[in-house]
Amino acid sequence: MKAVIRRGTQLVEDELAEPVPGEGQALVKTLVCGICGSDLHALHYLDHMIGLTRRAGGMETLDPTKDVVFGHEFCAEVLDYGPGCAGTLKPGTRVVSVPAAFGPAGSELVGYSNLFPGGFAERMVLQEALLLEVPNGLDAERAALTEPMAVGEHAVAQAPLTPQTVALVIGCGPVGLSVIAALKARGIGPVIAADFNPHRRQAAEALGADVVLDPGQHSPHERWEALDVPATLASYSAAQLMGRAIRDAVVFECVGVPGMLQQLIEKSPPTAKIIVVGVCMESDTIEPSLAINKQLSLNFVFGYSPEEFAATLHDIAHGTRDVTPLMSGTVGRSGVADAFKALSGGGAQIKLLVDPGQA
Amino acid sequence: MKAVIRRGTQLVEDELAEPVPGEGQALVKTLVCGICGSDLHALHYLDHMIGLTRRAGGMETLDPTKDVVFGHEFCAEVLDYGPGCAGTLKPGTRVVSVPAAFGPAGSELVGYSNLFPGGFAERMVLQEALLLEVPNGLDAERAALTEPMAVGEHAVAQAPLTPQTVALVIGCGPVGLSVIAALKARGIGPVIAADFNPHRRQAAEALGADVVLDPGQHSPHERWEALDVPATLASYSAAQLMGRAIRDAVVFECVGVPGMLQQLIEKSPPTAKIIVVGVCMESDTIEPSLAINKQLSLNFVFGYSPEEFAATLHDIAHGTRDVTPLMSGTVGRSGVADAFKALSGGGAQIKLLVDPGQA
Repeated sequence: MKAVIRRGTQLVEDELAEPVPGEGQALVKTLVCGICGSDLHALHYLDHMIGLTRRAGGMETLDPTKDVVFGHEFCAEVLDYGPGCAGTLKPGTRVVSVPAAFGPAGSELVGYSNLFPGGFAERMVLQEALLLEVPNGLDAERAALTEPMAVGEHAVAQAPLTPQTVALVIGCGPVGLSVIAALKARGIGPVIAADFNPHRRQAAEALGADVVLDPGQHSPHERWEALDVPATLASYSAAQLMGRAIRDAVVFECVGVPGMLQQLIEKSPPTAKIIVVGVCMESDTIEPSLAINKQLSLNFVFGYSPEEFAATLHDIAHGTRDVTPLMSGTVGRSGVADAFKALSGGGAQIKLLVDPGQA
Repeated sequence: MKAVIRRGTQLVEDELAEPVPGEGQALVKTLVCGICGSDLHALHYLDHMIGLTRRAGGMETLDPTKDVVFGHEFCAEVLDYGPGCAGTLKPGTRVVSVPAAFGPAGSELVGYSNLFPGGFAERMVLQEALLLEVPNGLDAERAALTEPMAVGEHAVAQAPLTPQTVALVIGCGPVGLSVIAALKARGIGPVIAADFNPHRRQAAEALGADVVLDPGQHSPHERWEALDVPATLASYSAAQLMGRAIRDAVVFECVGVPGMLQQLIEKSPPTAKIIVVGVCMESDTIEPSLAINKQLSLNFVFGYSPEEFAATLHDIAHGTRDVTPLMSGTVGRSGVADAFKALSGGGAQIKLLVDPGQA
């Protein structure tokens, strides 16, 4: 089959052996598959990513010197089944799945595995038990956004939200936008969104963010007092003593570069809950005593549960979570390398999809 | 009146003007007052502490070049009242109070103020509305430990505890011990406690810690699996897949030196909740991506609410929270400077009290 393969730190088009479904596994045809920010990083720094993940006890089997086919944000069509399957979903059914499959050494991440090619290949092997039928006639492009949108669903589910919450989303790439969508799906507001990129700000606005700012022009942290969130310890104490209305701040860090955490520790209001969704792959410096004085929390979140994934698919299929503002187009195999460059460049593209069946 | 005063970076005995209670304030005689780890730091680095606190909007009025009388962990006796007081608690009544009083520029911290001398002075001015009568015949020495024990009460109240919680307390100084006491008052267990100092380990054991370790001999993190807490991502996933019992880890960081947070990010089990109680006054380096992979949280906590303070006093007075293991003796004014040295030295002393009426 045809695939776009990570070989060394290059993306190359090549032929791969047909994947064969094992016990309990389905063979599927990839319809489309999104390019994730993690893929952009992993193209050049897969060793580093593996090193970090292994220290937490994951990615044990992935060898970065061997071929890897990226792609874990996919929509596919059932082709066939391996032994021991129920086969409930007939061939031709459109499906999505959390990107996990079981090999001889245990669970592997589809798209970060030497054994299980991801969605930049024409066909994949997935676990039958993890397949979810795409409901309500939802198109493959939107269904493929289930995975990135589930990241926001999980992040928001981990946040202590109340009707008094004022939410700030820093960074409006796919992660930040998925957070905004999950907040608005719960009716949380006001949601403040900040990004330097005007295309991403436009997408944030389309997803219902109430205040959308260019941090180069206006610091989002100047807005707290006007939204009844006491911005300093002094104003916090005064508000408490005077029985003034207090709303609580939840901040979503969706950028993932060094310096962001300390910036949020400095600028966030007292008692703010900071949910760290953006993955900073480098060491970072913080001042714990400032975080203690302000009684902040940093909640580091990752991935999603199968239930959150299924709930996200349901919302997208039934129109309560719109993914249109993220969609920047689809490329064939020959366009993948350029798409990686475009997404790394900070331009107009937000989420690009790959159709691996298209040259 | 006589007092031990921070003047420059020295502790000196000197006479001070008698404090005069203002509107709504009481004049009290200090019976005893504990020396806090913050006092040890503030003796030499008060500028630094003020700088950090001001960045959060606090300690606006404190001038480190002027005299400060430390002491915010006190038990006192009512002497007299200023104008506009109800005077419900008669002179001679023993009281404790959260260490806050109101001056012309707003709220001040008693013990970190140029206007309100703390408990290393013979007499103090406190807010009548904040006074709590010491109940049940509790002695002044134990009552003075209300403040440091309330720190543990607050830290534990901020932690997401369940009957499945396994708690690890890193550092068994007064802060760590107050956390252990608050955990055991709630019936939480097992509680693992770690400290290099044998005297502090002994105190932890006396307060009911279930497993007490010298981290120089045994890493407390080797115990997780034996206590049904999956220690790595791989064992966590396997436990979930196999339906094995999973207990959740809550870790209390009560040391407050650079490197502790990263050590906990490296060693804590996936999904552990890390409550940061120890105040690290320097910058610190962490690896956010490792925290994300493991979905850890860092909850920075500080102080206590008036309700937590009152509940702690009640528990101490009624014997449900024993403070005896912390008590290392009482010194007079002439012994304060040496007591500061002893507490900084890592010896047998845990909490030393000052009786400012004693030479």
